[in-house]
Amino acid sequence: MDNFEYYNPTKIIFGKGTEAQVGAETAHCGRKILLHYGGGSIKKSGLYDRVIRALKERGIKWVELGGAQPNPRLSLVRTGIEMCRKEEVDCILAVGGGSVIDSAKAIAMGVPYAGDVWDFFVGKAEVKAALPLGVVLTFPAAGSENSTGTVITNEDEWFKRSAGSPLLRPKFAILNPELSYTLPAYQTACGVADMMAHIFERYFSKTEDVDLTDRLSEATLKTIIKHAGILMKEPAHYAARAEIMWAGTLAHNGLLDTGRASDWATHAMEHELSALYDIAHGAGLALLFPSWMRYVYPVFPAKFMQFFERVWDVEPDYVHPDRMIAEGIDRLKTFYRSLGLPLSFQEAKLPVTDLDEMAEKCTRGGPIGSFKTLYKEDVLAIYRMASSLHA
Amino acid sequence: MDNFEYYNPTKIIFGKGTEAQVGAETAHCGRKILLHYGGGSIKKSGLYDRVIRALKERGIKWVELGGAQPNPRLSLVRTGIEMCRKEEVDCILAVGGGSVIDSAKAIAMGVPYAGDVWDFFVGKAEVKAALPLGVVLTFPAAGSENSTGTVITNEDEWFKRSAGSPLLRPKFAILNPELSYTLPAYQTACGVADMMAHIFERYFSKTEDVDLTDRLSEATLKTIIKHAGILMKEPAHYAARAEIMWAGTLAHNGLLDTGRASDWATHAMEHELSALYDIAHGAGLALLFPSWMRYVYPVFPAKFMQFFERVWDVEPDYVHPDRMIAEGIDRLKTFYRSLGLPLSFQEAKLPVTDLDEMAEKCTRGGPIGSFKTLYKEDVLAIYRMASSLHA
Repeated sequence: MDNFEYYNPTKIIFGKGTEAQVGAETAHCGRKILLHYGGGSIKKSGLYDRVIRALKERGIKWVELGGAQPNPRLSLVRTGIEMCRKEEVDCILAVGGGSVIDSAKAIAMGVPYAGDVWDFFVGKAEVKAALPLGVVLTFPAAGSENSTGTVITNEDEWFKRSAGSPLLRPKFAILNPELSYTLPAYQTACGVADMMAHIFERYFSKTEDVDLTDRLSEATLKTIIKHAGILMKEPAHYAARAEIMWAGTLAHNGLLDTGRASDWATHAMEHELSALYDIAHGAGLALLFPSWMRYVYPVFPAKFMQFFERVWDVEPDYVHPDRMIAEGIDRLKTFYRSLGLPLSFQEAKLPVTDLDEMAEKCTRGGPIGSFKTLYKEDVLAIYRMASSLHA
Repeated sequence: MDNFEYYNPTKIIFGKGTEAQVGAETAHCGRKILLHYGGGSIKKSGLYDRVIRALKERGIKWVELGGAQPNPRLSLVRTGIEMCRKEEVDCILAVGGGSVIDSAKAIAMGVPYAGDVWDFFVGKAEVKAALPLGVVLTFPAAGSENSTGTVITNEDEWFKRSAGSPLLRPKFAILNPELSYTLPAYQTACGVADMMAHIFERYFSKTEDVDLTDRLSEATLKTIIKHAGILMKEPAHYAARAEIMWAGTLAHNGLLDTGRASDWATHAMEHELSALYDIAHGAGLALLFPSWMRYVYPVFPAKFMQFFERVWDVEPDYVHPDRMIAEGIDRLKTFYRSLGLPLSFQEAKLPVTDLDEMAEKCTRGGPIGSFKTLYKEDVLAIYRMASSLHA
């Protein structure tokens, strides 16, 4: 187990009807806010009206910016930064899923920074200050409601890059599972794939003696797998929505990082996919992970054996680890398929003409991953494995 | 799953040599501190000198108060409060285990309060302010390093009572597993029993649909059980000390409470034992829990079946739940025995003459527990079951 620090001061407010508390919580953060949201589904659902009512009750003023979209765009972030400066906003409230929250985080760190906000995403600047941020979550997936990171797409060159700082951790996050009832099955599935991927990126680590962190990760994965299945049949199942929402937060709030190195190669590979083709992040991850696993497992098969036994109930085969791991990867693929997720470029209807370009862009800053260090040719090999159905 | 709030802003600094950071962390909290510790083992081990050096490097002034003992006493708390007021201390640093930290918390809330600090423990006052508190942990057990509570013994009448407030959560907690290498086996075992009990009190809940919280709890218990066994043979096994220390913190920091009612009857029954006989809290809990389980399981056998299958690998017996649960309780007792813990009043060399008095004191404020509500006669029945070896 490695030394670690864990500091997570986001106040989580979880459960039915909790969006009614948004006025009281926001009042601790600011007097004039930017209300940031996505494509307008919060207006259809009535959530927008409830949030506005709660803000008015506390005398909080607001300006608003909708339009944050999946793979949130740098141009909207820049618009938000300008708005906040002009309107002298002192807090941001994000109402939506990971894209809205990530966009809000980028705005929050851009406002007090003199240079261009993209600097933070290309390593040219470090976050020294940020506006405080609150969240009402509607779509459990990205874990951004309790994380330190943000991922933004620069549409000038279709680069998707991440930035992070403890200053970006939201002050509060309101998690009402009921708000996710109306998510279409495919979005629910993409969210599930995303939160599972957040755990995979941490779990597949060469750091030994992380028994508790491993077991907590397995516990979270088993919960997600069980309740994702329920939601495919019963989208308005409160208990299942609640388990998935809380699991999505814990998957990415740092708890499952404690004591070990994490990998993040598959996220890096997926960012090239969703930057170029605008595919849902979770779908891109589901498409890539089985191939990544097949490519890297020989580095440390024991970790995969433990994973497939404890999480996927594969019978141990100490004599033939390869067989055991192949069976495990099959079960993972079967699970993804049961959620309607694509298992290859082919199934996702993506072209396979840009693999070389993506592999090049993905490793332009150096090799990726820590479980196994991946160079351009490794990334290309994994993209190729993932490109056809029978990979 | 019930609605919940979870807010845990303690900064955890975990790993080898981390006590070197105590000066830098304390400097964020105050300029003149009360250094609070126990019986002097920190002087023998050299930890005291390292802490003092780190404080001096940051120019932090201190006054000190040693002598906090297991089942920490109200009289020392009162002495500490007077010292802090007289010396105009603005922060408390607790170096030790749960007793030292609990004593420090009681001092922290007593200083700004005009009345007598015992008021907080008998429900006469609510905590409105407290000095900030930092911790260097030496003995993983109580989880006080990241909890909101404190338990103090009033030696006038040998009452042991708890108080709590979010204001008592330490600002930082430094957890170096190496500091626990020298703990005697019996103390290690008592610590293990204490942290397991913290999980039991939360796990045995009638609240349904808490799958993630259940699985996280089981993950933590399995980790504790495995590594406690290692420590009985190898007390200076870093990985095992690290797993136990981190598990002890997570067992009691609120994460495993999320979404459900908790019980706490066994803690209340144990407090009477340790108040009267000054037995180690963990030993008292080990002695009582099997009898509590046997007494209450008919209320909701399914929860115990899940527990004994998932945590203790008991083969499911859906047709004969009683047999399955009896087997599980036997395994728990066998485990406690393997750690050298007493399984009855008899084994702990405690008299059985005060059972009625203890049952009366324990329920003076009303019945206890939420899994099953226990009145005086129930508590007495459990004490009786626990009084002889073959209970």
